[in-house]
Amino acid sequence: MITAVRDAWVVTQDPQRKIVRGDVIIEGEKIVSVGKEYKGSADKEIDASGDIVIPGLINTHTHVAMAVMKGAADDISFPAFLDRVFKIDSERTDKDLEIGTKIGCAEMVRSGTTTFVDLYYSEDIIAKATAEAGIRGVLCWCVLDEEYTTQKGNPLKNCKHFYNKFKNERKIMPGAGLQGVYVCGEEMCRGAKEFSDEKDIPLTFHLSETRKEVNDHRKKTGKRPAEWLNDIGVLGKNAIAAHSAWLTMNEVRLMADAGMSVSSCPVSNMKLATGGVAPIPEFQRYGVNVTVGTDGSTTNNSLDLMAELKTLGLLQKSSRWDPTVAKAQELLDFATLNAAKAIGMQGSLGSIEAGKYADIVILNGRSPNLRPMVPENIVSNIIYSASSANVKTVICQGDIVLENGRMNTIDEEDVLSVSEEMWRSLCQR
Amino acid sequence: MITAVRDAWVVTQDPQRKIVRGDVIIEGEKIVSVGKEYKGSADKEIDASGDIVIPGLINTHTHVAMAVMKGAADDISFPAFLDRVFKIDSERTDKDLEIGTKIGCAEMVRSGTTTFVDLYYSEDIIAKATAEAGIRGVLCWCVLDEEYTTQKGNPLKNCKHFYNKFKNERKIMPGAGLQGVYVCGEEMCRGAKEFSDEKDIPLTFHLSETRKEVNDHRKKTGKRPAEWLNDIGVLGKNAIAAHSAWLTMNEVRLMADAGMSVSSCPVSNMKLATGGVAPIPEFQRYGVNVTVGTDGSTTNNSLDLMAELKTLGLLQKSSRWDPTVAKAQELLDFATLNAAKAIGMQGSLGSIEAGKYADIVILNGRSPNLRPMVPENIVSNIIYSASSANVKTVICQGDIVLENGRMNTIDEEDVLSVSEEMWRSLCQR
Repeated sequence: MITAVRDAWVVTQDPQRKIVRGDVIIEGEKIVSVGKEYKGSADKEIDASGDIVIPGLINTHTHVAMAVMKGAADDISFPAFLDRVFKIDSERTDKDLEIGTKIGCAEMVRSGTTTFVDLYYSEDIIAKATAEAGIRGVLCWCVLDEEYTTQKGNPLKNCKHFYNKFKNERKIMPGAGLQGVYVCGEEMCRGAKEFSDEKDIPLTFHLSETRKEVNDHRKKTGKRPAEWLNDIGVLGKNAIAAHSAWLTMNEVRLMADAGMSVSSCPVSNMKLATGGVAPIPEFQRYGVNVTVGTDGSTTNNSLDLMAELKTLGLLQKSSRWDPTVAKAQELLDFATLNAAKAIGMQGSLGSIEAGKYADIVILNGRSPNLRPMVPENIVSNIIYSASSANVKTVICQGDIVLENGRMNTIDEEDVLSVSEEMWRSLCQR
Repeated sequence: MITAVRDAWVVTQDPQRKIVRGDVIIEGEKIVSVGKEYKGSADKEIDASGDIVIPGLINTHTHVAMAVMKGAADDISFPAFLDRVFKIDSERTDKDLEIGTKIGCAEMVRSGTTTFVDLYYSEDIIAKATAEAGIRGVLCWCVLDEEYTTQKGNPLKNCKHFYNKFKNERKIMPGAGLQGVYVCGEEMCRGAKEFSDEKDIPLTFHLSETRKEVNDHRKKTGKRPAEWLNDIGVLGKNAIAAHSAWLTMNEVRLMADAGMSVSSCPVSNMKLATGGVAPIPEFQRYGVNVTVGTDGSTTNNSLDLMAELKTLGLLQKSSRWDPTVAKAQELLDFATLNAAKAIGMQGSLGSIEAGKYADIVILNGRSPNLRPMVPENIVSNIIYSASSANVKTVICQGDIVLENGRMNTIDEEDVLSVSEEMWRSLCQR
């Protein structure tokens, strides 16, 4: 099966960050040719003349199944928010998890995301719904101490069981998750880390999202969270720390030395007003791998990584009083190359190069907000001017998931038709 | 001519902020019925079953013609930015002003904006292009001291001439503009204010966007800009002060006492890293009328007011460490009711009520990012989850400007086809 995407401006994200005009040829799941005119015949022809082709974006932190809860806890204090969301979260059904996942996947596809890292329980249900939606899920089963969880059984055992069951599923990569140091003791943290090392899978966790969380951990252990995690051996190249907003420079250096990644979630941090700002320039200077996440639908409330990238740039520039930090090209790198590295797929995702998986997004070049479009401003337009309105066609691992604005995988009308009933049963009591 | 928009969720923005399910009936330029089922026949039937209808958004600060310059000055220091943009701005042609305006108008329509306040020179060209695009322009000819301008002739005379020529043009409201206290002496400021009072038209100006501008004015006059403008009698109910980011509480109180409006431009302020944050809660407390603007395409770079509203909420919450400020309903008010008041059209714009102009935007209710959709979360979804991807149909003063995603007014392909050539001639030297 050969798919030919014809005559586009291709933002390759290759090592030279070349932007080329021409065809992208896909054979099966992989890209076989980029930029050259392809004279052969294709089974599927996609006319992308004058459109922009970018690598599928990678959202490194979300809780996709919460998409069915949007608008349930806005504009309220942080303690009130936590109370409300924890209560809803603990009373979910398999059906609303499935519907939430499908809505969330559709939202991500429609805003140019082809891969996401999820942190939640019931990842088996999320995996099935994600596979149906047709995008790539790095699904990290959330582990925490038994005294704090509503999960049945031991969370780490659940995580391992999920891994064994789904490890060979196409486009699903099971991972390990830790809720955070506030509910994960040393034994649970070490257990998740050992499992992640043994299977060479991502280990993601919330880290220093709020000041309270840092202060509480210092009171309990005498150490700041990243220092403590480093001391017990949890930081490493498989680790992806979400938020990472309240850190000292010493912690940044420890994280860099560990070769780990962060997933900055600026919209969530700003909307919840948790105060901290992730030290992106310092992460870059010391060598922490920077990526970006939307967080879940009760804190954002969209799962739109294109919007998130712009917000990340704005927050960094404004909080530093420096318009030269977090440049457009760096922001695009965070959501492509860096994110691919964070999930251990730098060899197969993150750029449009022969041999990599065909994860590509076609942006409509006839959109006034992307024009004028010249090679010199294409990346700037993608970051500062584009929106999900420009997303026309999305391909994940060779499969056309969205085609000219229509989902080819799940039946959206069907999924959405039951969503209100679920909102009422979850959020209105 | 009767247009019937059928069976939508109507976010009326009436005094009770009612959300009703039903029809919106338009006769000619005006709304005649809201919410009730209309049994009569219509000349034009629009099936909006399950869609969301909101008032057309009002962008109170932009320089629309700059849409042809997007991506020309990103990620550079503020002095370098000013040098670059001033140089480009001074060398524009009538043709690129026209094309820029049409691109900018199309961007605004496609993101739900039906009215914008513009501050620029050559508003005659901008007026013609805006009229062709079919949306409402409050076009404020930019006045500044002759020694600083590249305009031919006296700027205030140009402004008056423009007013006289376009005052009866449909959907065009000529206004007066002042570039800012850094290039406008007392005489020019008073002259513009007198003209604005005489004709009862808006007077808009940049105010305290940067700290340098405030410090320079204090050195020159001994007063902060808003204090000085108050002392010379320029503040009043017609005034719309863009940015308004570096203010003291004394200035906020003076502005409130004058009954004036501000246009906060958070994306521009953040992207340029000018440091200040508009004191929105204090504006609200003392009674300054708060509205929102995108600013121009070299500083934003989109003209997307939906995205701007979310960013304004995020910036206010995060800079105050308080998630309860700038609530979703308040943000929607800023871009509708408050903005209508700012331009003196509170009786005819800003809400969906019988007797007002038919300025309405239909958002696609089948969009996964807007679902689940229940009356309790509709406003939150509009502010925190929606994007321009959801904008389906846009009506301005009874005219259907965008219909199911297609522009009915200007030929976009035609306009866009010459835009790259203009970018090269303007931005690449």
